Amino acid sequence: MSLFLDKDSLTQFDSSMEARARARLDSLTKPQGSLGRLEDIAAWLCGWQQTLNPRTEKAYTLIFAGNHGVVAQGVSAFPSEVTVQMVANFENGGAAINQLCKAVPSTLRVIPLSLENPTQDFTKEPAMTVVECEQAFRIGMDSVPKDADILVIGEMGIGNTTVAAAIAHAICGGISADWVGAGTGIDEKAIVKKREVVAQAVAKHKDNLQDTISVLHHVGGRELAAMAGAIWKARELRVPVLLDGYVVTAAAATLHLTSKETLGHCLAGHLSVEAGHKKLLEFLGMKPLLDLGMRLGEGSGAQVALAIVRCAVATFNNMATFAEAAVVGRNDK
Amino acid sequence: MSLFLDKDSLTQFDSSMEARARARLDSLTKPQGSLGRLEDIAAWLCGWQQTLNPRTEKAYTLIFAGNHGVVAQGVSAFPSEVTVQMVANFENGGAAINQLCKAVPSTLRVIPLSLENPTQDFTKEPAMTVVECEQAFRIGMDSVPKDADILVIGEMGIGNTTVAAAIAHAICGGISADWVGAGTGIDEKAIVKKREVVAQAVAKHKDNLQDTISVLHHVGGRELAAMAGAIWKARELRVPVLLDGYVVTAAAATLHLTSKETLGHCLAGHLSVEAGHKKLLEFLGMKPLLDLGMRLGEGSGAQVALAIVRCAVATFNNMATFAEAAVVGRNDK
Repeated sequence: MSLFLDKDSLTQFDSSMEARARARLDSLTKPQGSLGRLEDIAAWLCGWQQTLNPRTEKAYTLIFAGNHGVVAQGVSAFPSEVTVQMVANFENGGAAINQLCKAVPSTLRVIPLSLENPTQDFTKEPAMTVVECEQAFRIGMDSVPKDADILVIGEMGIGNTTVAAAIAHAICGGISADWVGAGTGIDEKAIVKKREVVAQAVAKHKDNLQDTISVLHHVGGRELAAMAGAIWKARELRVPVLLDGYVVTAAAATLHLTSKETLGHCLAGHLSVEAGHKKLLEFLGMKPLLDLGMRLGEGSGAQVALAIVRCAVATFNNMATFAEAAVVGRNDK
Repeated sequence: MSLFLDKDSLTQFDSSMEARARARLDSLTKPQGSLGRLEDIAAWLCGWQQTLNPRTEKAYTLIFAGNHGVVAQGVSAFPSEVTVQMVANFENGGAAINQLCKAVPSTLRVIPLSLENPTQDFTKEPAMTVVECEQAFRIGMDSVPKDADILVIGEMGIGNTTVAAAIAHAICGGISADWVGAGTGIDEKAIVKKREVVAQAVAKHKDNLQDTISVLHHVGGRELAAMAGAIWKARELRVPVLLDGYVVTAAAATLHLTSKETLGHCLAGHLSVEAGHKKLLEFLGMKPLLDLGMRLGEGSGAQVALAIVRCAVATFNNMATFAEAAVVGRNDK
């Protein structure tokens, strides 16, 4: 059965709970609004979790991995075998994300998607069939733990910044150069090639890039389809999501085609230095929490951002009010 | 005995240790440089702590509190008694910084400086005598724990954004409006008054604003002198420091007058929305780690930034190398 993404089934943000959260924030011992985005994050969590006691203890970091036929075009600095090797590195605890999940506690789960079976080279044919794409999407949906308080979404896949660029170009338009960057670190000559590849892919499939699934199966990848599935499922469960960098944001952007409201439960964890990410976030109306010059993927930037979310929750849940602390108010009130 | 700040006694950053740290970073399982500022932070810690195993476990958050005679001019939205009340709130665990010190573990110490005895109104006379200023500076020096791995410096003091503005105006020039903002939340009329007050103070003392102590005692405050002392002492001990917002940065800026090298062991934790902070950081050549629209003080922004520093240390100390993880290198190497 074909996957039907029903925008009318989307769970809705609870604005009245948000208003109650804002009232609590204004009663705490600080000048109103002085915690800035920490206040916005707390109110946002309250609205999605429908509580005045937001929780982030049960955090899960989901890394989706895939391989890509388009790598044959010479668009990456590293060979495809690195995807499998890095998945092993995640499982052995040696990668950046392992350490970040200890520093900012979160349960790491790695979901490899048919790494031995890369997608097709989408400059020549669709990356996947509809069936393969929907399978990956459903794997993503099924990977969301039912007890999650919050999710961090990350990825690993040699070649997948080319996929992200193709998706961004397909959805947002412009020229391919707007969306293509150095990925893991290719040189200027390879960037020129990568731009050609992305332009060629989008031109080839331009009549079949109308909705979430058509974009994902023509110019996407298995891990991107799975990430879109996980984000979709999180919305059903009212679980807030922290998006990592360019590739995760591109996967999320495909859901924007189903409805512009689909990503309300998502925050951009950070701004990657990968060219195109800034513009894609602007297209989605998202303001990243961090700008640390990162470009690793693996969920790394969003994992660091989880620390900020935890700060927001700690202050919201446990600060004293002016009344409790017997601190007087403003001169003018 | 008068305090003599000898710039020739400053401990020096260990560049060879930094180079070794960079070499380790390039051996870890990630594209080179892909952790962005996390890599810079790790290398910076290695250079100051003179180790390839940087530590942040023993973190101390020092909050210096003071009261200010200039409040009589109507420059703050809150009355001076709030300083004492907030110090009690810190001690009772009800303030934002208490919760942030739990979320991002750190030992909180509050150092009140003669709260019952505000400085003089510096529009009329020097804020303090040289002796009072040096006493406060020495209290700050003595407040740095000898076993600290890293310090977060914060403050509380009704009226102290006016003090920060006067210091910034004295050191950086321009017009007073460049350096004056809404503080805890004054209205436009009070901002105009605050600008006049700052301009008046700097004009009055303009012939006595040449060095760290002269600036601090004419247009400073006790908690600012103490923060300058703590930062100076941390440098002697090679302890890295995270600066909070505008007031802390203004205190740090007074040390810039002793030598432009004095703040090498400091990082700007965040960019406050308080007008003047951005410009002051630019003057000091500092790029803040966070930009979250915060303006609370209490060390709150720098405390959140400590989480980022911990992420840098976790990845640096514990990631696997390419060789350890058996991950192949780049196509072109």
